[in-house]
Amino acid sequence: MNSSQFIFRKLEESDYDKNYLQLLSQLTEVGHITSKNFSEILSKIQSQIWVFEDTNANKIVASASILLEQKIIHCGGIVAHLEDVVVDQSYRGNQLGQKLIANIVEIARESGAYKIIADCKPELLSFYSKNGFEKRGEQIAIYFSH
Amino acid sequence: MNSSQFIFRKLEESDYDKNYLQLLSQLTEVGHITSKNFSEILSKIQSQIWVFEDTNANKIVASASILLEQKIIHCGGIVAHLEDVVVDQSYRGNQLGQKLIANIVEIARESGAYKIIADCKPELLSFYSKNGFEKRGEQIAIYFSH
Repeated sequence: MNSSQFIFRKLEESDYDKNYLQLLSQLTEVGHITSKNFSEILSKIQSQIWVFEDTNANKIVASASILLEQKIIHCGGIVAHLEDVVVDQSYRGNQLGQKLIANIVEIARESGAYKIIADCKPELLSFYSKNGFEKRGEQIAIYFSH
Repeated sequence: MNSSQFIFRKLEESDYDKNYLQLLSQLTEVGHITSKNFSEILSKIQSQIWVFEDTNANKIVASASILLEQKIIHCGGIVAHLEDVVVDQSYRGNQLGQKLIANIVEIARESGAYKIIADCKPELLSFYSKNGFEKRGEQIAIYFSH
């Protein structure tokens, strides 16, 4: 595995055929999404979704999303939300996750955002701290059953 | 102070003249925003911003935003982000904050979101738990200096 085999780029519709949903299913429940559904969902997504493709394997092996939120506060500032970070299990341990986060942080910085925020499990604090993240508050949630 | 004097509604451009920025400045830095800037910022905002107006005082006294994020995961599910919650200092202690959060949670539920998430300071966990929120993960951030 050498770094030249990995391309960092935005997610494309055709990544449906490059194991993208199998990658996401390592993060959480994905459900059954057809190729047509996938296109419809992508057309509604406001986030930028960035991926690493392993060009040797023709496969998406890491992904993260960034949602730029326009605020009123901070003189109409922008907050970048980092979401849905996942690295393929068989590609972990070779800094791909670190590179992914470093790239996303740089994109957020260049977008003019005044901060990038994310939520993570306690055991991932040390991973994110390598890219400059610090713990701030608590993440809270309500799950709805529809 | 009786409950009939409070109207719950979406933020309007004319709320610039109803002390809206003074309210936001109780949350964090707002900066100097002219009436024209305010209109421009609002035109770029994807979030729904909900407020309580005190119709006796002709003043916005509480505000919260909700950003609906389209996901691929959970069969193209939607996550509601609760942001920028603030109640005017002189109106605290009369359940206005609780009503605000309850209303926003209901809006999130009706929008079809599978969850609503927020970040808060540790000392606010008990406030949010009254509306059904539970602690999940850790909030992390990087602040940029531009």
